[in-house]
Amino acid sequence: MNFLEERIQKDGIVKEGNVLKVDSFLNHQMDIRLLEQMGEEFKRRFADVQVDKILTIEASGIGIACIAARYFDVPVVFAKKTQSINLDGEMYVAEVESFTHKCKNQVIVSKKFLKEGEHVLLIDDFLANGCALQGLLSIVAQAGAITEGIGIAIEKGFQSGGRIIRNLGYRLESLAIVDAMDAETGTVTFREQ
Amino acid sequence: MNFLEERIQKDGIVKEGNVLKVDSFLNHQMDIRLLEQMGEEFKRRFADVQVDKILTIEASGIGIACIAARYFDVPVVFAKKTQSINLDGEMYVAEVESFTHKCKNQVIVSKKFLKEGEHVLLIDDFLANGCALQGLLSIVAQAGAITEGIGIAIEKGFQSGGRIIRNLGYRLESLAIVDAMDAETGTVTFREQ
Repeated sequence: MNFLEERIQKDGIVKEGNVLKVDSFLNHQMDIRLLEQMGEEFKRRFADVQVDKILTIEASGIGIACIAARYFDVPVVFAKKTQSINLDGEMYVAEVESFTHKCKNQVIVSKKFLKEGEHVLLIDDFLANGCALQGLLSIVAQAGAITEGIGIAIEKGFQSGGRIIRNLGYRLESLAIVDAMDAETGTVTFREQ
Repeated sequence: MNFLEERIQKDGIVKEGNVLKVDSFLNHQMDIRLLEQMGEEFKRRFADVQVDKILTIEASGIGIACIAARYFDVPVVFAKKTQSINLDGEMYVAEVESFTHKCKNQVIVSKKFLKEGEHVLLIDDFLANGCALQGLLSIVAQAGAITEGIGIAIEKGFQSGGRIIRNLGYRLESLAIVDAMDAETGTVTFREQ
């Protein structure tokens, strides 16, 4: 088991309905030292790739992306889910359906911050059915930028998102892939990587 | 002028209606090296203070808080604005009114991640009328935790938030205080600190 799998085993909580709660260290309270280990590991896995910019989506992707960006020495752009009066000018917009929130969201990035030919690494905390990620991929394509890779903290391997993304030919690196969870015993089974 | 004031002068855009756009380096695209300078400066200003935890609010506070947390070596908790199915258990809730989004929001923190007697540093990107910050302060008080200080990137000094917070006796450090903006000339006037 790697450091993240160990942490999930130790502090993750399995709930009914295939919910894995990692809010004590990843997406409500954030363990910054863990995020640093994750950033270092993303850099190791994508060491051979040109990365000009990291793209993530609010809210829980932002912390992971910002700490990871230190290892790549690049700026972070985070996609917004709602339009604010501060978001003016031309924007890339993609429609996505959220599993967690059971509603449709828009994913929005200002055209100023994603340019043709830029090499982009996508980073997010969770990959389940992959809707948010599909929105980000759509936006990178709209911009004429290049998705060099996708770094995910926790992939739910029993949902279709990861398989779809890999089938599409993207280089997807998930630090932990959960193949099964049992709410009764609290056990998490990870995929061998 | 300090490094943040210089950056605002260089890359900030003044819009009608007292809108200061800093989305090219702070709250849509994020310059991680700038965030590191900010984190270092927050640590310098709050060097004499016990900080057990940094509390911020989604979305644009998260990156600043996470990078700053490296200098304090503490975890970050970010308050959520909407309830998700992943947020269960007991929660602290405060009602806040947003200037930017012209709507009321709830600020929510799980009771698991803020405990009685914890020493908390609040960090956010903007302070204008201070509603979001008042929500965070309310939550720290609800928890019986101690607000040791408040670190803000950009304070709009011509709005009432900063004055109210200082009147209430809080130690508030804003890296840049904007006293006036002129959309026609694009000039920003900073308060001498």
